[in-house]
Formats: sequence, structure tokens, C-alpha cells
Amino acid sequence: MKKSRIGVLRLGYRLVRDDRITTHLGLVARAFGADIIYLYDCDKSVKESIDKVTKRWGGSFESLIVDRWRDVIREWKDKGSLIIHLTMYGLPLQDVIDTIKNFEKDLLIIVGAEKVQKEVYMLSDYNVAIGNQPHSEVAALALFLDRYFEGKELNREFEGAKLKIIPQLKGKKVIRL
Amino acid sequence: MKKSRIGVLRLGYRLVRDDRITTHLGLVARAFGADIIYLYDCDKSVKESIDKVTKRWGGSFESLIVDRWRDVIREWKDKGSLIIHLTMYGLPLQDVIDTIKNFEKDLLIIVGAEKVQKEVYMLSDYNVAIGNQPHSEVAALALFLDRYFEGKELNREFEGAKLKIIPQLKGKKVIRL
Repeated sequence: MKKSRIGVLRLGYRLVRDDRITTHLGLVARAFGADIIYLYDCDKSVKESIDKVTKRWGGSFESLIVDRWRDVIREWKDKGSLIIHLTMYGLPLQDVIDTIKNFEKDLLIIVGAEKVQKEVYMLSDYNVAIGNQPHSEVAALALFLDRYFEGKELNREFEGAKLKIIPQLKGKKVIRL
Repeated sequence: MKKSRIGVLRLGYRLVRDDRITTHLGLVARAFGADIIYLYDCDKSVKESIDKVTKRWGGSFESLIVDRWRDVIREWKDKGSLIIHLTMYGLPLQDVIDTIKNFEKDLLIIVGAEKVQKEVYMLSDYNVAIGNQPHSEVAALALFLDRYFEGKELNREFEGAKLKIIPQLKGKKVIRL
């Protein structure tokens, strides 16, 4: 499978004070192999937290604060990407992931907060459910990417890292590179 | 494999204002097949949010606010359970999950916030990393349980649910039971 480009579009709402959840989402996007996260209606401190991790732990993950989320979807659609929306109301991950992989297209993965406009469901090629139970968009994104990359993302090396963990049964070991 | 009992112990710290992350953790624990979550140093509203989901969406998931987290670990240890701590410093999930499954023991899974005391690393039988990159304890718990249950947790039915989702390619369909 050729390496497709993977973007994540976070539709947060500042009023909900979801900053920590959005930070976790950004870190999951990076750690699980996405290339970029677009942060809509998001505090600058969230972007800073994500970028700080990329700087220390390596890789070329990008984050961008955007004012117009529809433009992001249009841009990716125009390039021929597949638009995926993660929602508990969608089709089961296990039923659609092989089809999605077989397209070998770039993916824009939309991750909403509690209320998502109907338009998002309609603009998406696939609405995908990670189990049809309420849980967490952070878990949903991690599971989606894990299945998409077939677990290989957990072994990935991040270029240009300043820090690297040496796994331990008990305790912590971090080396500076 | 016989059904083992699975507990999750959340070591949060109220000062960090991690209430939303802890709520997500509780919902992930429930949706991905754990039986109970113990919430340490946690606001009552978090427990209420989790319990409300269980009441509407079914199953017998429990949540308990605890004052003494060491007692929870001791209780599970005394019953012969395996104590697992999810941490980016631990051994890779993919290297240890089969061994953990083969024990066929009950599991207490400890999930910390940013700073976890060294004692937790020592009290645990396995410190397990879901990738050795910083990301999210919500994603870590979801991935651990997904690998433990081999994806079957996504098809689980929850007894006594008042609501059930009928998966859709686009849109939402929820039925009342």
C-alpha cells in the first residue's frame, strides 16, 4: 500500500472548553501516523502544546488553526481525497476499513465534539463508528488509525527526535539523542 | 478464554482539571469491555456523567469514587489479579499482550494522569506502553482493551439499553427499546 497522506480536522467548540481533549486528539493523530491536524475554533495554547511534543519527540507532524472548516474539506475533496467522519452513528469500523484502505487515497478524518452539524455527515464519504456506543473521539481516532495502519504505527520511528524512550518492565528510561 | 473481570483505576489529580479526560476514560472503559472504574481524587460530576451513559445505553458497568488508591490495588492483588499500568515508558503492547491474555487472570488496569508516582510502576506486574510516544491515556486504554478482546468488544450488545443505534452511511438513527 502506498503511503497516503492523512489529515485530521477537529471540529471543536471553544465554549465547551475541550482544550485538553483537543490536545490529546492532536497527540494521538501524530503518534498514530497522521500528517496534519486542522484545529477549528481552538485556543492557541492547544496548538503550542502539540507542536512542543513534535519538536521534542520528532517527526514532521503539522498543526494548523483554521477559521473556515468547510474550506479544509473542499480542499481535500478537490484533491481527490476520501472524507471520513468518525461518529457513533456511522457504519461499523470493522465493516468498512478494508474498503477504505483499498481506495489507496489520501484521507481527511473529521472528528467532532458533542454536537456535529448534519452537513458534516452529508459532506463525508463515510461516516464510521468505532462501536455504536458513546465513548471518546480520542479513542475513536486512535482505533481508526490503528486499524488503518494494521498496528504498524506503534513501531514507527520519528525522525529528528531529541528524546527517545527505552522500554522498561518497571521504571523509566529516556535517552537524549 | 474465560471471561476475566477487568477493573480500571484512574489516578487523576483534581488540580489538573482533568474531568473531561476522566469522563472519556470511564466511557471508554465501559464501551471497550471493562467491568468497573475506580476514580481517585475525582469530582462527583464525572461519576454522574459516566453512570448516566450506563443507565441509558445499558450494561452493568460500575463506577466508584475512592479515597485510597493503594487499597484498590491491594484488594485486586489479594484476589490474584494481574496489575497492569499503562505508561509510555513501559514494554510495547504488541510484545506483552499475548502473555497477559494467556494468564487468564482478572486485570486491574491503572491509568495515570501526567505525573505518576514511582510506586505505581513498582506495584504493577506489567508496565505497558501503547507506542513509546506521548499521546493520551484515553487512546492507550482503548487500544489495550481492543487488543485484549481482539476487536470483539466493538460488536458487544449492552443488556438493558434504553437506546440503540442503527448504523447509517449518512445521518443518525437511534431507536428506543
